[in-house]
Amino acid sequence: MATITKRSEDYSKWYQELVIKAGLAEPSEVRGCMIIKPYGFAIWEKIQAYLDRRFKETGHQNAYFPIFIPKSFFSKEAEHVEGFAKEAAVVTHYRLKNSPDGKGVIVDPEAKLEEEYIVRPTSETIIWNTYRNWIQSYRDLPILINQWANVVRWEMRTRLFLRTSEFLWQEGHTAHETADEALAEARQMLEVYREFAENLLAVPVIAGSKSPSERFAGAIETFTIEGLMQDGKALQMGTSHFLGQNFAKAFDVKFLNRDGKQEYVWATSWGVSTRLIGALIMTHSDDNGLVLPPKIAPLQVVIVPIYKKTEQLEQITEYVQPIIKGLRAKGITVKFDNDNNKTPGWKFNEYELKGVPVRIAVGPRDMKGRSVEIARRDTLEKKTYPVDNVAEIVDNLLVQIQNDIFQRALDYRQKHTYYVDSWEEFKQRIEEGGFVLAHWDGTDETEARIKELTKATIRVLPVEEIKEQGKDLLTGKLSERRVVFARAY
Amino acid sequence: MATITKRSEDYSKWYQELVIKAGLAEPSEVRGCMIIKPYGFAIWEKIQAYLDRRFKETGHQNAYFPIFIPKSFFSKEAEHVEGFAKEAAVVTHYRLKNSPDGKGVIVDPEAKLEEEYIVRPTSETIIWNTYRNWIQSYRDLPILINQWANVVRWEMRTRLFLRTSEFLWQEGHTAHETADEALAEARQMLEVYREFAENLLAVPVIAGSKSPSERFAGAIETFTIEGLMQDGKALQMGTSHFLGQNFAKAFDVKFLNRDGKQEYVWATSWGVSTRLIGALIMTHSDDNGLVLPPKIAPLQVVIVPIYKKTEQLEQITEYVQPIIKGLRAKGITVKFDNDNNKTPGWKFNEYELKGVPVRIAVGPRDMKGRSVEIARRDTLEKKTYPVDNVAEIVDNLLVQIQNDIFQRALDYRQKHTYYVDSWEEFKQRIEEGGFVLAHWDGTDETEARIKELTKATIRVLPVEEIKEQGKDLLTGKLSERRVVFARAY
Repeated sequence: MATITKRSEDYSKWYQELVIKAGLAEPSEVRGCMIIKPYGFAIWEKIQAYLDRRFKETGHQNAYFPIFIPKSFFSKEAEHVEGFAKEAAVVTHYRLKNSPDGKGVIVDPEAKLEEEYIVRPTSETIIWNTYRNWIQSYRDLPILINQWANVVRWEMRTRLFLRTSEFLWQEGHTAHETADEALAEARQMLEVYREFAENLLAVPVIAGSKSPSERFAGAIETFTIEGLMQDGKALQMGTSHFLGQNFAKAFDVKFLNRDGKQEYVWATSWGVSTRLIGALIMTHSDDNGLVLPPKIAPLQVVIVPIYKKTEQLEQITEYVQPIIKGLRAKGITVKFDNDNNKTPGWKFNEYELKGVPVRIAVGPRDMKGRSVEIARRDTLEKKTYPVDNVAEIVDNLLVQIQNDIFQRALDYRQKHTYYVDSWEEFKQRIEEGGFVLAHWDGTDETEARIKELTKATIRVLPVEEIKEQGKDLLTGKLSERRVVFARAY
Repeated sequence: MATITKRSEDYSKWYQELVIKAGLAEPSEVRGCMIIKPYGFAIWEKIQAYLDRRFKETGHQNAYFPIFIPKSFFSKEAEHVEGFAKEAAVVTHYRLKNSPDGKGVIVDPEAKLEEEYIVRPTSETIIWNTYRNWIQSYRDLPILINQWANVVRWEMRTRLFLRTSEFLWQEGHTAHETADEALAEARQMLEVYREFAENLLAVPVIAGSKSPSERFAGAIETFTIEGLMQDGKALQMGTSHFLGQNFAKAFDVKFLNRDGKQEYVWATSWGVSTRLIGALIMTHSDDNGLVLPPKIAPLQVVIVPIYKKTEQLEQITEYVQPIIKGLRAKGITVKFDNDNNKTPGWKFNEYELKGVPVRIAVGPRDMKGRSVEIARRDTLEKKTYPVDNVAEIVDNLLVQIQNDIFQRALDYRQKHTYYVDSWEEFKQRIEEGGFVLAHWDGTDETEARIKELTKATIRVLPVEEIKEQGKDLLTGKLSERRVVFARAY
């Protein structure tokens, strides 16, 4: 059977092996691009379904914009071009032809594009170029659009889900009459992300703002949700940007406001990606494999029969029918694994690896006692229950597991969150891993110097901020608040 | 208000204007690529939801493969490279840099890829390159995978939805132990497409096989569903391919069969795209705008208040509450359009343009008579009904409309389907438009000659074939069956 490296031995190796052996994803022969396998994609579908519903409830509609962006579009927003146009996939030609040597095909030099296209790394530019034609007056606002799409950023070092050259995401792009309304939208979507991360993924996050140097290229304000992984590193799980009028100015998008005056439109954008699956894995899973919160698990319950003879399997099959029916009636996904080619032991390991939250085992002794054995994946606890009430027991247990998984992650984070006031302790805490709340003098220079010395970055200025006078750890300058430092993915 | 060209004046102009004015899609500044607007995307979401459910019911799972395909992959299947690698978007570089003249960015010549990537025009090659690692024995089969994705084919002449350089689609890719099983899969998916086209889109289709010259590049057999548009032209709406062992051989994908021998794997692939939205429009819509079958309509019912004074609007608002509640309880989507800035006349035109299947109008006179006026979009009929029973009336009416729309399209097709036995009549019928069932001698040469002379192609060899001795129209050679000829999109 598939055994994986222990987390304590090599966390990064554990992660890579787990992703592959649990059948979530694998590297492809295309540089930095991954193949998302059915089990991994089923998790993404649950993320999509949840968020899509929340986006629609908050008034957004889906649309689709071209994957290619003319190169010149990127030059229009000064910061944006620095941030996004550099490491990008560039389409220069539109035709291949047979190789003169008769072997394969070559790029046809005649078919060179006049202007190159960039495969979208993010879509602000093409979308704002389009919004110019959609917006004349305040009556055309707000525009509340989301897009589910693939994007490409040419990454040098890639890791499955966490950082890949192509990834799947959603990007919301909204247009508003006023700065206040746009800012409220950006904050609303941050809250949608926070609630989603904690409720569906059971990953506790700190929501707040980025420091100026960590902002999205072209944003006035970037909001973020940050999770703490088991190895003490932070992971940015979603961002929501207040873009001010930057893109409206770059693409000349004005509207007639309620005072009859031409004004530039106010913008937001916000996104989460397949990276979330990496966060899910690194927050909950263990040395035996995935631990999936029931709400995100593609399969919630597996029933494994324990038998020696075929007639026993037949009896068990009959015995579990009311259980299966009862679980399905409650909307719980369940599989009865009667594969004759695999042993119960093999199946136990396999479903542990795959993180199925609840396992029910049934053998002749259980049938005799009118009971079943129910095991929790998260704690590996096993208990025997009477068979008549299984659906209700499991239904409650799934809620319990979801809550417990969240609580454990929260406990872990609280245990690894430190208030630090000396530089020596700061260095040590950062080295050990965790969120370090420390005073910062508010300058880019100090932030950069701390990063250089410790590899720690400012992850977030929490929404629920702790206003407090203090002194910057490094410079000793006055500070008004603590911010969250950590090393990050 | 937006008026559109009449179909009788210029069908192609009518189509283009309707797509844009109804807010379905619009051209972009990226050559041949369209922007799918929210109303058009909502139709695509309904298509996705229906098909995704059907795919899963037939045992398929979703996955995701990279958008880029190494150029050399295309050379591995001889016919496939001819069919797909030629008009393609080619990624040659992975970085931009600041222009030396300080203006904008240029492609960094240092960042040239060793091997170019093709933006996928279809994914057989990268998927079969992956399946090689997934398949060892018959126990690993079948593999039943579908992907929802964007693809790019560099088209010279593009039309919104019907032919665009980038489009959205699904592509199923399955792997099987035997030829029979793969062939049964290809036929099963054809039937899924047929049922979907007729049941959801209300578009009657002829299902069957393609002639050899019209097969997918690399297929042994291509199945198709073909619809007949209002201008007498055929539209291919979905294809399902039996690929034999061609891709398995090209990518060396073998398995240990049940007899303990190494054998190449058998394959299918099948897909439908955003092109379907074009078929939907061109089958049902009229000079007033879209006509949408209720099952695919993003909005099924609109309620328009007719009033002069604000207090009347308040009364109407109260009056329609039970109607809205009753409709929603039946799962019907309904909007009460109380926009004070637009007249009822403007709204009537707008919802006609958008193809909302049922419009309910309520004015003071209706309230007095305890009635409402209900109008059907498809027939433009209006009738007055008592207010107490509206939800049930509308529920039944939506079923009726769905059936009637399908029946009208079927009647149209039957009226424009001709059994033809002389070359003169053949030319005339093709010129006028419609499906022409004629004898064909089965050769590529005759097919090509007929195309040259009349622009007609063999659309389909129907599943429900009419076995009948006859003579080829052009060559006089013996023929065993009639096939369907038409000019096509």
